[in-house]
Amino acid sequence: MAALCIAGSLAAADPVRDYVLPRQQAILKEYAALIEIPNVSSDLPNLRRNADRIQQMYEKRGVPTRLLTLKNYAPIVFGEIKTPGAKRTINFYAHYDGQPVDPADWTTRQPFLPELRDQNNQVIPLEQTTYNSNWRLHGRSSSDDKAPIMAMAIALDAIKSLGLKHKSNIRFFFEGEEEAGSIHLTEYLQQYKELVMGDLWLICDGPVHQNRQQSIVFGVRGATNIEITVYGPKRALHSGHYGGWVPNPAQRLTRLISGFSDGEGHILIKDFYKDIVPYNASEIAAIKKIPPVEDLLREEFGLAETEGDGKPLLETYSRPTLNLRGIRAGDVGKGGVNVIPAEATATFDIRLVKGLDAKTQVERVTAHLIAQGYLVLNRPPTDEERLKHAKILRLTSREGYNSVRSPLDMPIAQDVIKAVEFSSGPVVLIPSSGGSVPLAMFVEVTKMPLVMVPIANHDNNQHAPNENLRLQNLWDGISLMAALLTRL
Amino acid sequence: MAALCIAGSLAAADPVRDYVLPRQQAILKEYAALIEIPNVSSDLPNLRRNADRIQQMYEKRGVPTRLLTLKNYAPIVFGEIKTPGAKRTINFYAHYDGQPVDPADWTTRQPFLPELRDQNNQVIPLEQTTYNSNWRLHGRSSSDDKAPIMAMAIALDAIKSLGLKHKSNIRFFFEGEEEAGSIHLTEYLQQYKELVMGDLWLICDGPVHQNRQQSIVFGVRGATNIEITVYGPKRALHSGHYGGWVPNPAQRLTRLISGFSDGEGHILIKDFYKDIVPYNASEIAAIKKIPPVEDLLREEFGLAETEGDGKPLLETYSRPTLNLRGIRAGDVGKGGVNVIPAEATATFDIRLVKGLDAKTQVERVTAHLIAQGYLVLNRPPTDEERLKHAKILRLTSREGYNSVRSPLDMPIAQDVIKAVEFSSGPVVLIPSSGGSVPLAMFVEVTKMPLVMVPIANHDNNQHAPNENLRLQNLWDGISLMAALLTRL
Repeated sequence: MAALCIAGSLAAADPVRDYVLPRQQAILKEYAALIEIPNVSSDLPNLRRNADRIQQMYEKRGVPTRLLTLKNYAPIVFGEIKTPGAKRTINFYAHYDGQPVDPADWTTRQPFLPELRDQNNQVIPLEQTTYNSNWRLHGRSSSDDKAPIMAMAIALDAIKSLGLKHKSNIRFFFEGEEEAGSIHLTEYLQQYKELVMGDLWLICDGPVHQNRQQSIVFGVRGATNIEITVYGPKRALHSGHYGGWVPNPAQRLTRLISGFSDGEGHILIKDFYKDIVPYNASEIAAIKKIPPVEDLLREEFGLAETEGDGKPLLETYSRPTLNLRGIRAGDVGKGGVNVIPAEATATFDIRLVKGLDAKTQVERVTAHLIAQGYLVLNRPPTDEERLKHAKILRLTSREGYNSVRSPLDMPIAQDVIKAVEFSSGPVVLIPSSGGSVPLAMFVEVTKMPLVMVPIANHDNNQHAPNENLRLQNLWDGISLMAALLTRL
Repeated sequence: MAALCIAGSLAAADPVRDYVLPRQQAILKEYAALIEIPNVSSDLPNLRRNADRIQQMYEKRGVPTRLLTLKNYAPIVFGEIKTPGAKRTINFYAHYDGQPVDPADWTTRQPFLPELRDQNNQVIPLEQTTYNSNWRLHGRSSSDDKAPIMAMAIALDAIKSLGLKHKSNIRFFFEGEEEAGSIHLTEYLQQYKELVMGDLWLICDGPVHQNRQQSIVFGVRGATNIEITVYGPKRALHSGHYGGWVPNPAQRLTRLISGFSDGEGHILIKDFYKDIVPYNASEIAAIKKIPPVEDLLREEFGLAETEGDGKPLLETYSRPTLNLRGIRAGDVGKGGVNVIPAEATATFDIRLVKGLDAKTQVERVTAHLIAQGYLVLNRPPTDEERLKHAKILRLTSREGYNSVRSPLDMPIAQDVIKAVEFSSGPVVLIPSSGGSVPLAMFVEVTKMPLVMVPIANHDNNQHAPNENLRLQNLWDGISLMAALLTRL
């Protein structure tokens, strides 16, 4: 069968694919109904609606489910299939919440409106006789991360219809706070520890490799956020009357941010790279086996040059980042007015690698800011502080989570690789994803190993407007999930 | 009378003040009705409504008026009082348009809703028996620059009621595009040159001195704007998957902006300070006579330190500025998401002083950007350009206008000073305002001298939300305009 599999192609012999083909329209309609339930992390009533819907979807397929609840947090949808004679228990993780939605970014479409779009990005009716594999289903969380939840449900239908059997006990564990930093996941895992203890976490999140080959990922970068507000005059001032005399907080903020790096992607904050556990030989070797995608990506993104000292993209995931994800002061374009803004705010995501701790990394940034002469507060300054300190900023940070990396050569990993190869052909083994999923707490609380099996396309515009799932990735994902549900 | 006048006090003997006092409520009601007509520079239909209203206000007071029109530009309201035996013709300039309004900044009130607020900033009914002189009338353009238009109208009522006479021919020239940079004013002046030729332009715009003394201003800084957009990847990218490899355009923009200055208010762009005509001895002497306001302002603005090398605020007006009035990329706060933004934009206002040319100054900034390795375009890059150039930005600039300064010792200036002292007591003589009004074209086209007589309070929040006019400044302004209309 391996001879049939080239990059991006399908494993032709999988009967699950034959099951899916005549049912594509029904699958997409069920999926669209799931996408259209809003799932912003801060919107608890709608998160509960998502959880209820998912519970119904799995109950309908014969999976006993329950909602794990704790305080007023978004519930975890938990389901369990007990398999007689099973020697292992496999936990399938995904999350049903999505990133925040800024209405200003969604002027041409509604974030939660599912839309089928053809290769030319034109909206077409969801109901079609046949579906081109490169069409895409648009909508917030169509890829990140409702896709695996849908794929597993259809895989269960296929398994039943084809008379396939599970080898292991199967658990479903669908979180509702991942995009808010999984801030209560540790508490949930501790509370429900006995319910979830098993042999392996299969984390179903993130995109497959950029060449569209299926990948298995053995770790993730950790992540935390910081937001910095530099204070200027107590109110916005006319830039003619006071420009050149009143310090401009936006100008000062740009100076601070510029000083964070050398302009070529290297962070200059003291000890920012300290304590990093570099990739070992087997991790570097795995990366070397992966078909290079860098030239393709540079062309796709329209970039003449990239950072990372010429290393392959995946090797740069061994480094932490300090990404300026947003900056705001005054206004630009038609809204721009001639003022010295009263304050200027920038927000960053810090990606962490093995060996780094989220809190320590924030402390290093804080120390850098203090070294630049700033009074660093976690609140706006008082009038007294303003008159005493020339440079004042507020720094807030979100409780982040650390990186985790599982060994590439642990025994259960070999079984996962075989199952994935059955459905998807040769796989790409990735020591660490560049993205972040709260995995550290899984390992810390349950001491279980984990691997990630993503299904979304890499060009899914995850976290941005126009998030989408390529249809072929959904069909592939269903086969993949069926293989993992029956062959592990 | 001079003995009666201390800083901020009134010239008690002016009969115009006695005229105004019992009519304050009616004046404020007429003014509120003018403020509530929206006047954003880009909103031509509403600008025309303002022009019509002002024309009616002056016609009602017996001033023959007409609308000067040109193409589809906002009209100029022009009025003329011919005085038999007059030896001079004085042109009174003001503008009826206002700065753009960003709805995000106006969440607590409507921009064009006139509101009377007491000393505690509480809204109170417009109709009152007596009015505290420190109450303020809030609303866009309440100070900048509908206030002089209103003050002149009431001054005409007082002149008629008190039987005062004009000495000179009087002209009113009210522009509707000042906040858009007076982009068609030169064309208007050229077209209607014969209609406007006279002996003096009295420019009624801007605020009085910060100690609330009446000021006469002999010049203004020029102004232009630039907007810079730095381009990153063709679409926003997930900061986990691509952070540390794809260059972040917001980070790059902060680096560029940081390099514009030394962090202490000095611009580092080559030749930015070249060709400046410094203040001469009489200008420095005038500044030295002005009561210092710096400590007061620092306390009011909540600033421990200011820029300008320790010079008085007014002396810093002899320097050009490059003010970062707005910067935007991605989002901050709850809207912040973990992406590398596709682009980052910053907008600046450049203040110009005597000797500098707006175009040349923009060229100097452009040269600086090119020297940083950027391909500088005036449009978004093509795909080809993206793949060829690592650093690309778009720079757009608005057609600006240059600075102008009239000699402090020209003969007609002495008459203006005397008229102002009659209504307002000792005046503050200011060689140049920090702000900008399009005066260069007045001088270039008509070769007439000009001086500015502002009436607004310095703390009027001009250009910012919560723009307001202190009531005493309106009453003072009426007396001032009556004196200028009759004593010149």
